[in-house]
Amino acid sequence: MNKIIAISRQYGSAGRTIGVKLADKLGIKCYDSALLDKIAEKTGFDKKYIKESGEYTSSGSWMLSAIAGRDYNGHSIQDEIWNVQREVLIEIAEKESCVIVGRNADYVLDGKADILSVFIHASEEARIDRIVNDYKEVSDKEDPARKLRQMDKRRRAYCQLYTDIQWGDARFYDVCLDSSRFGIDKCVEILSGMYEVL
Amino acid sequence: MNKIIAISRQYGSAGRTIGVKLADKLGIKCYDSALLDKIAEKTGFDKKYIKESGEYTSSGSWMLSAIAGRDYNGHSIQDEIWNVQREVLIEIAEKESCVIVGRNADYVLDGKADILSVFIHASEEARIDRIVNDYKEVSDKEDPARKLRQMDKRRRAYCQLYTDIQWGDARFYDVCLDSSRFGIDKCVEILSGMYEVL
Repeated sequence: MNKIIAISRQYGSAGRTIGVKLADKLGIKCYDSALLDKIAEKTGFDKKYIKESGEYTSSGSWMLSAIAGRDYNGHSIQDEIWNVQREVLIEIAEKESCVIVGRNADYVLDGKADILSVFIHASEEARIDRIVNDYKEVSDKEDPARKLRQMDKRRRAYCQLYTDIQWGDARFYDVCLDSSRFGIDKCVEILSGMYEVL
Repeated sequence: MNKIIAISRQYGSAGRTIGVKLADKLGIKCYDSALLDKIAEKTGFDKKYIKESGEYTSSGSWMLSAIAGRDYNGHSIQDEIWNVQREVLIEIAEKESCVIVGRNADYVLDGKADILSVFIHASEEARIDRIVNDYKEVSDKEDPARKLRQMDKRRRAYCQLYTDIQWGDARFYDVCLDSSRFGIDKCVEILSGMYEVL
């Protein structure tokens, strides 16, 4: 089986950056935007839309999201994206060892690859600094702390809707790291050491 | 400030063994039974009783435990042990760098030492094997899986009663590791590498 590092992460925790650097260090591919391309190709949906709908519930309330927008067969567009995403992840896992950021790859690929499941989090202070100054994803009108809470809530709800994993609960991951405590490079070093012993 | 590795752990996850081996590797002390001695000395209570009451609620229900056994000032014996335990932990932190297993040391010593907070967990299978074959803490009449659940529930409830930490929630720890995934020695190696960069 191929060896896959599946990274789940809090919004603004640098989980994506860690994934990219880790893949680079290990000489394997990091699936992130490349994953979006594949899903977009299969579904015909816009990448921006998939980025949103394939990881976040469409509102703060997962119940609302679960009920809203379903057709007569009980399927929503979100379900459609979940299914295609699942197929794409399985194809990738069969093809190569890699890093996958987000998309609940740990759950989808359980039993289909040798998974190192990772959860990256960070202090609120570090995350606010990152989303405001690095990502520049906060408008002047938004409260960054509120944005963090909303985004995490939507990721948690999405995870709850489609998987048996309790998002952010240590028991469901091989390793969880506070990136603000260790820094990005040390996280990459730690995870790379773990990958070697998989 | 002294550097302290505070280990919280699921019952049967080998967190204690990892703590002992880690302290040995780093050439520092591991406070575990030594901590019980100090608390016993200060309170006059039996070590066995302190072992139980200083980390576990006295019943499966933390509400019941919080209400039961209180004197007219609202203090229970459990509160008394918590207070002495707190004093002992602070004394240790002021004296030396060390490993402390359990006792919510991460919460108590926040700001009083340079803390590496760790949560160790493991698969149910590995934990059952450990408590039945290594600890020999399961009688023939007991269901080991049920015992795991009960012990964890009581540790979580105790943590909830006395601290602001959500037991086992990754966000509250610097690092969480699945000891059944990596093995005890690899966990020791990982944590020892983290201690060096504290």
